[in-house]
Amino acid sequence: MHSVGIIYCSGVDFLIRASVLGATGYAGEELVRILAAHPKVKIVHLISKSYAGEAFSDVYQSFTNILDIKLEDIDVERISKDSDVVFTALPHGACSAIVPKFIEAGVRVIDFSGDYRYTDKDIYEKWYGIKHNSPHLLKKAVYGLCELNRKEIAGKALVANPGCYTTCSILALAPAVAEKIIDTSSIIIDAKSGVTGAGRSASLDFSFCECAENMKAYKVAEHRHTSEIEQQLSMIANEEITLTFSPHLMPLKRGIIATCYANLKDTRYSTQEIIEIYKDFYKNERFIRIYPNGRLPEIKYITSSNYTDIGLKVDGRNCRLIVVCCLDNLVKGAAGQAVQNMNILFGIAEETGIDSPPIYL
Amino acid sequence: MHSVGIIYCSGVDFLIRASVLGATGYAGEELVRILAAHPKVKIVHLISKSYAGEAFSDVYQSFTNILDIKLEDIDVERISKDSDVVFTALPHGACSAIVPKFIEAGVRVIDFSGDYRYTDKDIYEKWYGIKHNSPHLLKKAVYGLCELNRKEIAGKALVANPGCYTTCSILALAPAVAEKIIDTSSIIIDAKSGVTGAGRSASLDFSFCECAENMKAYKVAEHRHTSEIEQQLSMIANEEITLTFSPHLMPLKRGIIATCYANLKDTRYSTQEIIEIYKDFYKNERFIRIYPNGRLPEIKYITSSNYTDIGLKVDGRNCRLIVVCCLDNLVKGAAGQAVQNMNILFGIAEETGIDSPPIYL
Amino acid sequence: MHSVGIIYCSGVDFLIRASVLGATGYAGEELVRILAAHPKVKIVHLISKSYAGEAFSDVYQSFTNILDIKLEDIDVERISKDSDVVFTALPHGACSAIVPKFIEAGVRVIDFSGDYRYTDKDIYEKWYGIKHNSPHLLKKAVYGLCELNRKEIAGKALVANPGCYTTCSILALAPAVAEKIIDTSSIIIDAKSGVTGAGRSASLDFSFCECAENMKAYKVAEHRHTSEIEQQLSMIANEEITLTFSPHLMPLKRGIIATCYANLKDTRYSTQEIIEIYKDFYKNERFIRIYPNGRLPEIKYITSSNYTDIGLKVDGRNCRLIVVCCLDNLVKGAAGQAVQNMNILFGIAEETGIDSPPIYL
Amino acid sequence: MHSVGIIYCSGVDFLIRASVLGATGYAGEELVRILAAHPKVKIVHLISKSYAGEAFSDVYQSFTNILDIKLEDIDVERISKDSDVVFTALPHGACSAIVPKFIEAGVRVIDFSGDYRYTDKDIYEKWYGIKHNSPHLLKKAVYGLCELNRKEIAGKALVANPGCYTTCSILALAPAVAEKIIDTSSIIIDAKSGVTGAGRSASLDFSFCECAENMKAYKVAEHRHTSEIEQQLSMIANEEITLTFSPHLMPLKRGIIATCYANLKDTRYSTQEIIEIYKDFYKNERFIRIYPNGRLPEIKYITSSNYTDIGLKVDGRNCRLIVVCCLDNLVKGAAGQAVQNMNILFGIAEETGIDSPPIYL
Repeated sequence: MHSVGIIYCSGVDFLIRASVLGATGYAGEELVRILAAHPKVKIVHLISKSYAGEAFSDVYQSFTNILDIKLEDIDVERISKDSDVVFTALPHGACSAIVPKFIEAGVRVIDFSGDYRYTDKDIYEKWYGIKHNSPHLLKKAVYGLCELNRKEIAGKALVANPGCYTTCSILALAPAVAEKIIDTSSIIIDAKSGVTGAGRSASLDFSFCECAENMKAYKVAEHRHTSEIEQQLSMIANEEITLTFSPHLMPLKRGIIATCYANLKDTRYSTQEIIEIYKDFYKNERFIRIYPNGRLPEIKYITSSNYTDIGLKVDGRNCRLIVVCCLDNLVKGAAGQAVQNMNILFGIAEETGIDSPPIYL
Repeated sequence: MHSVGIIYCSGVDFLIRASVLGATGYAGEELVRILAAHPKVKIVHLISKSYAGEAFSDVYQSFTNILDIKLEDIDVERISKDSDVVFTALPHGACSAIVPKFIEAGVRVIDFSGDYRYTDKDIYEKWYGIKHNSPHLLKKAVYGLCELNRKEIAGKALVANPGCYTTCSILALAPAVAEKIIDTSSIIIDAKSGVTGAGRSASLDFSFCECAENMKAYKVAEHRHTSEIEQQLSMIANEEITLTFSPHLMPLKRGIIATCYANLKDTRYSTQEIIEIYKDFYKNERFIRIYPNGRLPEIKYITSSNYTDIGLKVDGRNCRLIVVCCLDNLVKGAAGQAVQNMNILFGIAEETGIDSPPIYL
Repeated sequence: MHSVGIIYCSGVDFLIRASVLGATGYAGEELVRILAAHPKVKIVHLISKSYAGEAFSDVYQSFTNILDIKLEDIDVERISKDSDVVFTALPHGACSAIVPKFIEAGVRVIDFSGDYRYTDKDIYEKWYGIKHNSPHLLKKAVYGLCELNRKEIAGKALVANPGCYTTCSILALAPAVAEKIIDTSSIIIDAKSGVTGAGRSASLDFSFCECAENMKAYKVAEHRHTSEIEQQLSMIANEEITLTFSPHLMPLKRGIIATCYANLKDTRYSTQEIIEIYKDFYKNERFIRIYPNGRLPEIKYITSSNYTDIGLKVDGRNCRLIVVCCLDNLVKGAAGQAVQNMNILFGIAEETGIDSPPIYL
Repeated sequence: MHSVGIIYCSGVDFLIRASVLGATGYAGEELVRILAAHPKVKIVHLISKSYAGEAFSDVYQSFTNILDIKLEDIDVERISKDSDVVFTALPHGACSAIVPKFIEAGVRVIDFSGDYRYTDKDIYEKWYGIKHNSPHLLKKAVYGLCELNRKEIAGKALVANPGCYTTCSILALAPAVAEKIIDTSSIIIDAKSGVTGAGRSASLDFSFCECAENMKAYKVAEHRHTSEIEQQLSMIANEEITLTFSPHLMPLKRGIIATCYANLKDTRYSTQEIIEIYKDFYKNERFIRIYPNGRLPEIKYITSSNYTDIGLKVDGRNCRLIVVCCLDNLVKGAAGQAVQNMNILFGIAEETGIDSPPIYL
């Protein structure tokens, strides 16, 4: 059994042995892409129920001659023996059923589902509509929003990797909430996601013909991520926050843009002053870029990277703050942040393997 | 000179003689497409400064063998003599310079620009940053949002055809404002537009490579249409309303979706109750469809049609109303509404020529 | 029982009673859209196995308040009694099982599948890999490529509506083959289709994330439509033709563009001469547009219309003819041509209900 | 002055000092992205006439905090002094005017334009329609198609980086031509390119609204790259080859897919045999992947990578070979191959800095 908490990687030749459950979903594939190029990682097992026996490059031909490793069915014991860390990119419910086994075997787990993101199992069960399979782990898990919880993450065995909408929304609002410059009862988040956010599946709703040249709102004021955003912002604010969250589906593949609104507590705030507050709040964060006055982020400025870009505008006529935040849902909203969490867990430089610049086109 | 106000079209053979200034812009082309199939219209002159001398079907090859009419340079006298109505789809400023000449000549004008949408020239000049060329006409003009101003439009010589974002936003909020169910100081409109909204022009910003797989907010809390929405909603409310308006650019060609937020004055409103209020408000409106509880509009449900689709949701946890509204910016947001205005002006059935169902794909 | 062959519609008030089997597929929906606006048609029954009991506008919300008619399960007797014509937009095999019943009941059938497009059942069975359910009808059926078979279509009970790739390819090459200006052993058709060509279904292959920003060739030199194109061109040429057909999937919704290549028999042909041959061949065809020298068709010039656009270029350096042909796979490649066939069958003006100009944007 | 030809980079700390002329075009930006992450390169000067004085990250906000280096106006002397290699990504004509100065100063040049791709200046002047500014350099230049000319490239001062269509077409056909299995008079290349192929410019033709949901052929049988493909294939074949080349514009950003046709000299070839010939021809090539029988390449399998993917099919009914080839026009078709050339020039491992796997989504 591994002892959790020590700093690995002091020696040059050490490689983190990593396995991925759910390697053929879009977040899984992106994780594999990042891990395959990560200088401190050795991919050990790629698990896929649907494609066990096939090569990873049979499912993603893009990896031909690059990663022809065979996909396997799940074998907890073998995976545990061979791995320092396991990424579980399975549906919620499925994760909470299998994660305990890895934790017991002393393997660190970074979980992509919603299963360990809540401190209160009742909130999880209410928003997800299912019973939690391992509520005893909720206390052991840490919410892996790296920029906010870095210190808590470091020694943990189980990281709940945050949702994509959630990461975008929380990073957009954390400074305003922490610095108490907004009326927390007035928060509205109008978020737009690319279609990869819906995952890889044969579904009419996400077919090309139904999505191209279309845009829609869905699950308005009832999307699960609402509860996750509220929980985290409430902890930051040290008060109970409820807010309105409206997700939309955009006709593009990758990226989230969240336009967030809240009333300012003081009419005298200028855009520039709040930019300074944000810059200060995130002053040492490599992956968060606060835009100068007059500029706003766009999806294409962050695509395929681990960056979160934030732009601000005070609507002085209405004493309202508007924050626009962009990230790549597959990277900072999933696989990239998972690797960032892994880097923190194993004590290596946080940007290792996730420092590629965005691909503009 | 035509006498303005009489009912034309009583006889079966009457055709409205229509001319279009700015026929080769996207709104112009769409207008020509609708007019060409309109059973009560004869297209007389199509004017285009840039393409004068070429056939309309040289610029839009789609019209080959359908509308090969020559584009002409502007000749006010000739156009006035030949036309019952002139549509001016030119840039703002250009319209206010030329429209007075047609009005003096007794021709009805339906203007696509922002030039005659304001009752107060100062508001126009502040938001548009230019001097108005014919402020004396502001009083004569009527704001052509057909569903709200039908009676005022009927006898007029000059119709200010509303903006696309504006039509969408006002129709989304008019019932809530008129019935006084929302706190008018809390209105936020998060609007998303397709790229045709930017018009037809050689511009890097609207090139395929800059727009595809991208999404951005722009002119947040400073877009001109803000003032137009505020003016109309203030008139409906009979009180001064200011609001926050955030436009976004979507990677698709046609369509606007506006997600509107406002605090409810009473915590007891249910989604169903407000749906009933909306249905009642728009009860005789052919082109407005209020969605049943649990359904929301999407761009693809209205593409290429004159419909405005509205869906509603009460966020009970935050006592907030969310209204989602979709329309086609080139049809109900421009050319379709212009024709609807023309139909009203000339006393023919309002849906004539604009009653095609949406094209789903 | 109706007597087949007489001219209907001589009186002004006559309406063709039409039913659609498979009304909720994309070709079905497009057919319904066209029929709903057709001045000589009354839609009687819309049949959908999957959605029987729901309103058509529940499946396609775009038709809310326009066509709220209930979808029904199939009832051959009732449909036959109520209908003058039945459109069968079902999978191949399913059509050949049900069509005989309508034919026996004296109802005219326009079939969208491949089931009746062949004169030789063996060719069908070889390329489709299934047994034909009603081979006795093959002789009764007419191949409904209107521009080429108009006279044969007129009196028929059963029309085999051509495939989309097929219509595009045959119309592109018919004049060259008929006028014997090309070496028929050298024909290559490189065709590209939008995703609606794959129909409406929950399939990973046609999901937004797999299709957007992608392009691929598929079933190269083995696509079924090869045999259909060969059969028709062979009949025109009065010799056995085999050719190479390569389909591709484009990241757009509607439209086919076929780039066709063949060696010219004579080095002296100029582009202009061949344009004249094509113009002459199609001289009375409203829905076929031959482009002038120097211009080539594009998908956007025909979208949503029944037009087939053809442009030509002689590659003099290689004594080769290149023909570029575009049509909308859902209109001229399916529903539009079906209605054109119906118009011919019932003796009404061929363009009735399908004469809308293309929608450029 | 540098002495050309020696092997640099023997020591671990050596960095190639690289400058880019035309750094803000799409190929330029992609080159900068690759160079910025290249472990053996130091970017020295980024030149942009239009944006001199601004930061690179002002033009491409994606590079904020990553590459904030100032763009400069051109200063040949200073650039020459500071650089080991200069990449010239300027329009043709402009390159041949400035490249001689760098060559004289002893700096190696990798040129992106067509200016040095021809051995015969007359062919260049005929197809490009301008006079060549430095024909004396044509003999000194090497055609930088790495897989075919690796040995010739190694010691050169001036590399003509091949065109995107050209690289795709030549790599697709080189084995068939070299092994003399096809009739070289029958070659047809039907190529499709994403919109980045047209470069970064304010142009109506490449605007989102004109390109999305559209597809077109253009410059059929008269595109410049025809001559470049013919020259290279003729050299491989050791006979004069002319061929038909038809470019198309696809509604996507990156990637080329070329479907190539040629008659086989022998009816007995099977798909598998030709696959083996291709595999053997490219047996040591890391960046060329020959697909197994039954699989074909797609744009999404190579996006953002330096790979060229090739799939084959024998159309036995017509004794014809069909080769489908995909590459990323900005990488293997421009910036990636330029860096591959640089790696060869400077004697470092050829894949350095360009070995990232494709980004599937």
